[in-house]
Amino acid sequence: MRIAIDAFGGDNAPLEILKGAVLAKQYGEQLVLVGSEQEIRNCAQENGVDLSGIEIMDAKTVMDMHDEARAVLKAKADSSMSVGLRAVAAGEADAFVTAGPTGAALMGATMIVRRIKGVKRPALCVVIPSAKKPYLLIDCGANAECRPEMLNQFAVMGSVYMEKVMGYENPRVGLANNGAEDSKGTELQVEAYKLLKANDQINFIGNAEGRDVPSGDYDVIVADGFTGNIILKLTEGLASALMSMLKEVFYQSTISKLAAAVLKPGLRGFKNKMDYTKYGGAPIIGLQKPVVKAHGSSNAEAIKNAVRQAIDWSRSGVTEALAEKLGRQTDAEE
Amino acid sequence: MRIAIDAFGGDNAPLEILKGAVLAKQYGEQLVLVGSEQEIRNCAQENGVDLSGIEIMDAKTVMDMHDEARAVLKAKADSSMSVGLRAVAAGEADAFVTAGPTGAALMGATMIVRRIKGVKRPALCVVIPSAKKPYLLIDCGANAECRPEMLNQFAVMGSVYMEKVMGYENPRVGLANNGAEDSKGTELQVEAYKLLKANDQINFIGNAEGRDVPSGDYDVIVADGFTGNIILKLTEGLASALMSMLKEVFYQSTISKLAAAVLKPGLRGFKNKMDYTKYGGAPIIGLQKPVVKAHGSSNAEAIKNAVRQAIDWSRSGVTEALAEKLGRQTDAEE
Repeated sequence: MRIAIDAFGGDNAPLEILKGAVLAKQYGEQLVLVGSEQEIRNCAQENGVDLSGIEIMDAKTVMDMHDEARAVLKAKADSSMSVGLRAVAAGEADAFVTAGPTGAALMGATMIVRRIKGVKRPALCVVIPSAKKPYLLIDCGANAECRPEMLNQFAVMGSVYMEKVMGYENPRVGLANNGAEDSKGTELQVEAYKLLKANDQINFIGNAEGRDVPSGDYDVIVADGFTGNIILKLTEGLASALMSMLKEVFYQSTISKLAAAVLKPGLRGFKNKMDYTKYGGAPIIGLQKPVVKAHGSSNAEAIKNAVRQAIDWSRSGVTEALAEKLGRQTDAEE
Repeated sequence: MRIAIDAFGGDNAPLEILKGAVLAKQYGEQLVLVGSEQEIRNCAQENGVDLSGIEIMDAKTVMDMHDEARAVLKAKADSSMSVGLRAVAAGEADAFVTAGPTGAALMGATMIVRRIKGVKRPALCVVIPSAKKPYLLIDCGANAECRPEMLNQFAVMGSVYMEKVMGYENPRVGLANNGAEDSKGTELQVEAYKLLKANDQINFIGNAEGRDVPSGDYDVIVADGFTGNIILKLTEGLASALMSMLKEVFYQSTISKLAAAVLKPGLRGFKNKMDYTKYGGAPIIGLQKPVVKAHGSSNAEAIKNAVRQAIDWSRSGVTEALAEKLGRQTDAEE
């Protein structure tokens, strides 16, 4: 298997990406760094990073935050992101990992790697820790405006991912909504509820109110991309606000500092549990090949995890299962 | 001033409501408990609650969770909620506090107490603690589907409330959105952004992503009722999930329990800071008189706080300011 990695995506590129690739050698697959070969070699040499065994695929430019997303298709077709995506589309790599701009990654993945037949829209998802088992949030930002049938497909896509990649059995699906009753929500949720309830390809257990989302009682939370984005970022923001408030408690006095030191191993475990980079990046699901969007602030460890995720996903049979399920769905609609 | 209190609203009625009313006597205003006089007297006697100085306004029935919201208007016009709202509308009370069902309280408040001239839709809001100062979230559930002009009014309503009731100077308004750039969001947010930016009655500082919402960098977060409901309940759910995970850390061993005991006063302060019942209930704003929807699980302390909030609000001049600002806005549109 060959995994292509965007060497120039994200805030810490290229050094942390190179280091992440080196860490990911442990998985035994062929890794391919995509980006300016000259700069990659220089960076590796300056920082004593040993890239032996890792291939380099040259690309002249970089997609940056200020580029229009569509530039990935033409104006910046020579960017590391674009070259990597084309390598995947051409079968020269089995999956692609990038920490570059989300909008460009979504547009490039959709137009270059292309959708699985029957998929209306690829979705961006994230595995998020909860008090119990982690859950998958889909869509968390690819499609701000959705139709009910899209949410219904997201449910299938999310369920297959959790089953095949994360090993969940018969994942419980919830629809993010403003109440538990089936008549709740805007027109979108009301209609999506009916489709989800009638869908025998998933284990839909009902509406999930905001307070139920992080409870661990749902394995897949389905939302339009606007709502999903709010859920994802509010989760990040609250976790960090609460942690900083707790730190204040710990640093109040000498004795509280001592007490906090005693609790340190437990708190580290807690922090670890809440760290969702350990599940990798955000899968862009619904494509013919796996594309993982790693967080823009990814360090080497996060890149390594995203590579492992791309490998697991590539091996998992998600794509084949979705082609079968959603192709069937489309046929039935026709 | 006379504050009417629904004696039969919420999970802990009537006992906790009666106790809350007794606690609220300290504010020196005339309190009026609304509900079956017989049952109120019996409950007070059985539990040794001294209701001296508190009036009772008899009402035969109760709005419960299973009633249709509209029942408050006719079928259950003899309920404590309906009688209380009519007392406010008739000028027999200056404000109303209820922990009864939200849908019925919204419908009853809108149709019985009625809107301020110029207000398109009353909104439900909540003051939520943040790492710094608390912020107001508006709308958090009254209007699942909104038009851009409604969000623009919510911004004015929320700003006036924070200024007049909470004492904030020139409150900073943010629009809950899926990105910081002004073109972000669905059509609703894109259009609302333009209106907010052009509105000289508010201090609009831009879009607030999910992670910015609890940062304390915004004093008023404007959202449609669907998104606001998700934000409110996810905040509740995450805070409680994180607290229970922390408890696990504390109860891991004898020594961690000792350390946690040392930190207890600080943690209590933290818990206190996060407790939003101290700001009262959820104001239903945009009405001719204050109506406070207290949490369904309110205890005596929460009811007392909601009464104090109703008094502050009634004195604050919010209604007059909104009549002036939103009446003017409507005139300008005509």
